[in-house]
Amino acid sequence: MTNHSLLQKLRKQYRPQIADCLSDFVAWEEKKVPCLQNDVLKTFPHISQNPILEAKKSPIKELKSLRVGVVFSGGPAAGGHNCLWGLYEGIKKYHKESSLVGFLSGPSGIIEGKYKELDDQILQDYYNEGGFDCLGSGRTKIETKEQFEKAKQTIKQLALDALVVIGGDDTNTNAALLAEYLEAENEKVAVIGIPKTIDGDMRGEMIEASFGFDSAAAVYAELLGNIARDAISSRKYYHFVKIMGRTASHLALECALAVQPNLTFIGEEVQDLQLSIKDITDEIVNLVEARAKKGIYHGVIVFPEGLIEFIPEMKSLIKELNALLAKMDQNQAIEHLSAKAKDLFLRLPQKIQQQLLIDRDSHGNVQVSLIETEKLFLELSQEELGKRGSKFSPLSHFFGYEGRCCLPTNFDATYCFNLGLAAAHIAMKGVTGYIVAIANLTKDPQDWIVKALPLARLIHFEMRKGVMKPVIEKKLVDVKGLVFKQFMKNREECKLQDCYINPGPIQFFGPAANKISSTLIIENQKQ
Amino acid sequence: MTNHSLLQKLRKQYRPQIADCLSDFVAWEEKKVPCLQNDVLKTFPHISQNPILEAKKSPIKELKSLRVGVVFSGGPAAGGHNCLWGLYEGIKKYHKESSLVGFLSGPSGIIEGKYKELDDQILQDYYNEGGFDCLGSGRTKIETKEQFEKAKQTIKQLALDALVVIGGDDTNTNAALLAEYLEAENEKVAVIGIPKTIDGDMRGEMIEASFGFDSAAAVYAELLGNIARDAISSRKYYHFVKIMGRTASHLALECALAVQPNLTFIGEEVQDLQLSIKDITDEIVNLVEARAKKGIYHGVIVFPEGLIEFIPEMKSLIKELNALLAKMDQNQAIEHLSAKAKDLFLRLPQKIQQQLLIDRDSHGNVQVSLIETEKLFLELSQEELGKRGSKFSPLSHFFGYEGRCCLPTNFDATYCFNLGLAAAHIAMKGVTGYIVAIANLTKDPQDWIVKALPLARLIHFEMRKGVMKPVIEKKLVDVKGLVFKQFMKNREECKLQDCYINPGPIQFFGPAANKISSTLIIENQKQ
Repeated sequence: MTNHSLLQKLRKQYRPQIADCLSDFVAWEEKKVPCLQNDVLKTFPHISQNPILEAKKSPIKELKSLRVGVVFSGGPAAGGHNCLWGLYEGIKKYHKESSLVGFLSGPSGIIEGKYKELDDQILQDYYNEGGFDCLGSGRTKIETKEQFEKAKQTIKQLALDALVVIGGDDTNTNAALLAEYLEAENEKVAVIGIPKTIDGDMRGEMIEASFGFDSAAAVYAELLGNIARDAISSRKYYHFVKIMGRTASHLALECALAVQPNLTFIGEEVQDLQLSIKDITDEIVNLVEARAKKGIYHGVIVFPEGLIEFIPEMKSLIKELNALLAKMDQNQAIEHLSAKAKDLFLRLPQKIQQQLLIDRDSHGNVQVSLIETEKLFLELSQEELGKRGSKFSPLSHFFGYEGRCCLPTNFDATYCFNLGLAAAHIAMKGVTGYIVAIANLTKDPQDWIVKALPLARLIHFEMRKGVMKPVIEKKLVDVKGLVFKQFMKNREECKLQDCYINPGPIQFFGPAANKISSTLIIENQKQ
Repeated sequence: MTNHSLLQKLRKQYRPQIADCLSDFVAWEEKKVPCLQNDVLKTFPHISQNPILEAKKSPIKELKSLRVGVVFSGGPAAGGHNCLWGLYEGIKKYHKESSLVGFLSGPSGIIEGKYKELDDQILQDYYNEGGFDCLGSGRTKIETKEQFEKAKQTIKQLALDALVVIGGDDTNTNAALLAEYLEAENEKVAVIGIPKTIDGDMRGEMIEASFGFDSAAAVYAELLGNIARDAISSRKYYHFVKIMGRTASHLALECALAVQPNLTFIGEEVQDLQLSIKDITDEIVNLVEARAKKGIYHGVIVFPEGLIEFIPEMKSLIKELNALLAKMDQNQAIEHLSAKAKDLFLRLPQKIQQQLLIDRDSHGNVQVSLIETEKLFLELSQEELGKRGSKFSPLSHFFGYEGRCCLPTNFDATYCFNLGLAAAHIAMKGVTGYIVAIANLTKDPQDWIVKALPLARLIHFEMRKGVMKPVIEKKLVDVKGLVFKQFMKNREECKLQDCYINPGPIQFFGPAANKISSTLIIENQKQ
C-alpha cells in the first residue's frame, strides 16, 4: 500500500494511548486460580497449571534480545496492524536487537516457513490501518501432529523466543495445543494468543472484547442507519438486511441498539423460543400488515447471518439431508426425509431447495453459510403477502465484507496497540500458553487492566462430529443478559413507529471520535 | 425523528457558511444570453426569454411577506433538508410573516393538496440531516394538462408566491412546463428548481454539481475501499461491485479515482468502443488469468448500475424483445429474435434470460434496472474460467441505497443551504421558470458565485417513444473529458498491481472534513 488517501495519511499520525500498567517495564503478578477440569488437565499437562498474570508497572530490567514471530489467522478484523505495531514497539523498547518476523498468508506461513522481517519502515505504512494485508491471513489450522512438527521446525530455524497468534476461538484453541506440544517437546518458545473476531463471540468473563467488533459494528450501523433513513424518505420499500456474524448475533444486536429497526431477529432468542420458519415469516407478515393499516409501506428488518442454524426445524432438516445425501441421489433423498422435514423442505423457495441439495462442502455437508437468510424470508413473506393481496416492495442487503477491513475506530486502534504491547511483555517474561486480555475497556485507556490468561483455562470439551474435542466456547448472545434486555426495552414500540436512529460514519476527530459499542458499555455495567 | 445519535446531535450544531453574495439582501444582475432554439421558444413562449441572473449583495429592501411551497421529487439525496432550511431562513430573514409549506410524498402532494406548514420547531430537527423524510418524496410527475390544473388549484388555494421544486432532470423539465403553464394562465407564482441527483448527471456548463453526489460517492468509496482492503487481506476473493447510477457512470468513475480498483467499466466508454458482453467478459477473464500467473487470486471489479444499457448488442436485444413480446408469447418471441440477438440471448445465464422475459414494467417493457449487471458478469466469467480450469472465487456487492440518505458531507450541507437561500432570493424577486445554480464550488463558500438560470435554457428536444419531447439532457461521462483522462492515467498499472486506496468514512471534524469529490475538483480545473 503506497497509495494513501488524505484520511489514511492523517490516521498515520494518530498515537494510541498506552495503558498505565504497560507504560514502563512490566512485572507480571501471579493470581491464584481454582483447579481446572480433569480432561483439560489431561490434554494440557504442561500449560494448564499456569497462573493468571496481571501486568504491574515496574522498574526496567535488563533483557536479552528477543526474536518473535507473529501471524494473522482467519477473517480480517480492523486493528490487526496495530497489534503488530504494539508488539514491535514493545520488544524493541527494551532491546534494539530484538526482531519481529511476520508469517505470510496465515498459519500456513508457519508450516511452510514463509515470512518476512518486519521493521519500522514496513510497519509505519500500517499504523492505524484496517485489514490484515501487511502479512495476509488464511484459514489453515495447525492441529495435526505433522503440522505441529513443521511449526516446530520453523520456530527452531528462525530461533523464535515467542510466537504471537492473532485469531479467534479456533485459532486460540490450536495455539493452546501447539503451546502444549512445544512445551512437551521441550522447545522453549512462548506461544501467545490475541483475541480477534468481528463477530464479538470471543469474549466472556475473562475477555471483555475481541478486537474488530467495535469497528465492524460501527460500519454496519452506519449503513443500516442510512438504509432506515432511506426507508422513511422513500416510504415504499421494506429492507431485509442481513448482518455478518456466522454464529453469534452480537453484531446484529449491536446494530439493533444503534439504529432501532422495526424488527430484528436474534438467533439465540429464536432458538430459545424454538421458532419455526413459519413463525418468523408470520411475524414479518403480521408486522407488514399492521403497518399497512396505519398507511405505512416501508420498514427495516434485520437478520443475523447465522440465523438459519438457530432454527430448530432447519437444523433437523439439514442434519437429515446430510445423512441421506451421503447415501442416495437428490430425488431419493427428498423422498426419504421425515414427514416434518419434507414438509418444511417443500415449503422453501426453489432457490433455497437448490442450495440445500447442490451446494455442499468438501465433506458433503450442506453449506449453511451460503443460504441467503434475508432472501429466504423476503421470498416467503412476499409469497404470503401476495396471497393476502397486500402491497409489499422488498429489497435485500448484506452487510459483511464492508466492515472487516475498515480503518479501525480509535477504540480498536488503541485496544490493539495495547494488546500487541501486552503480548510483547509476555514474550519478555517467556511464558507460554497465554492469551492477552484487557479489562476496564470502557474506562480511559490509562486505567485499563492488562492480564494474561492461561489459554487452557478458556478451554472445555465439546462433541464435534462424534469426537470430544477441546474448544474455546463461543460466547453467544445471552437472552437473559443486560444487552438483550436493553434491546427488549423498546422493541415493541419500534415495530409500528419508526424510531430509527442514524449513527453516522466512524469519526476520528471531534467529540464523537471516542464512541464505543453499546454492547461493551452495557456489558461493563455489570461490574 | 426524535431519536438521535451522538453524531446527529453534534451535526445539528453545524452552521453552513453562507456565500458572500447571499449574506445580505440580493440584487439579481441580468446577464445577456444568446437566443434559444426555435422549438424551445415555441414550447416555452413565456419563460424562454428570461435572462440569466447573478446574485449581487445589496442593501436590504423592504419586502412584503411571502408564502412559499416546496417539494422533494424522486430518489432522496443527502442535503435535501438543508435546502428546506436555507429556503426558510431566506424568506424569514426579510419578513417574519413569510411562511413555508412543504408538500408531502413528492409532487403528488401538490396535486392532492397534501402538505404541512414548516416552522423552526420542525426544521431544526433536520439541520444537516440526511434523507428526505421531513416531507417524504415520490416519483409522480406533474406533466399532463389535468395535473397542471390541479397544481394550479393547490397553488391558488394556498396563495403561494413561489413553488420550489427539488429534483433531477425530469422534475426540472416538468417544473419548466409548469412554470410556462402557470405563466400562460396568468397565475403569478415563481416556479423555481433546485438541482438534485446523487448520480451527478444533472450538471453541465451552467450547473457545476447536483447535490447529493458528493455524499453518496463518499459512502460508496468508503465501502469500496474497505472491500479492496479485504481483498488484499484475505487474498482469495474477486469482488464484483455494482455502484448506483441508473444512467451516467459518474459515481463509479468517482469511486474508481478514489479507490483504484483493478478494473472499472464506464458505461459511456463501453458504448464509445461498442463493446459486447463477450468483450467485457473476456477483459475480466484475461485479467483474472494474468493475475493468477503472478500468484494473485483476488481483485476488485466495478460496474456502474446502468452498464447494460450502454452495451449496443444488449440494447438491440432488449428492443427486439420489447417489440416481440407485445405480440407473442415468450417461446415464440425467442424464436423470432434476429440471429444475432438470439445468439446473445442464449449465451446469457438462465436467470438473466428469465429476467428479460418475465420482469416487465406496466408498459410491457423489459425492466433493465432489475438486471443484476454484477452477477451477469460474475456468472459469465465464472463459466469461462471454469472451462479453462482456473481458480476463481467471486463475490458480488451492490452499493446503492446506503448512499442516498447518509448524513450530508460538509460540502453538500453547505451547498444545499446556499441553494435553498438562493431559491428564497429568487422567490423574493418573483420571477418564474428558474433553476438556482452555484459556481466556483471548489473555492471557499464565501467566494461562491450564485446564479439563477432560465430552466428553458437547459432544455432541448429529444425523441422519446416516438414523440419529440422537451428534456433536460443528462450529462454523461465525457470519455474525452478531464475526469476520464485522470482515470485513464494509471488504470493499466492498477490491473496487475494492487494500487488500492482507502478513502475511509466521511469526516465532519478535523482536517479531512472539507474534502470534496475529485470529479468536482477536476472538472473545475478547466476554468
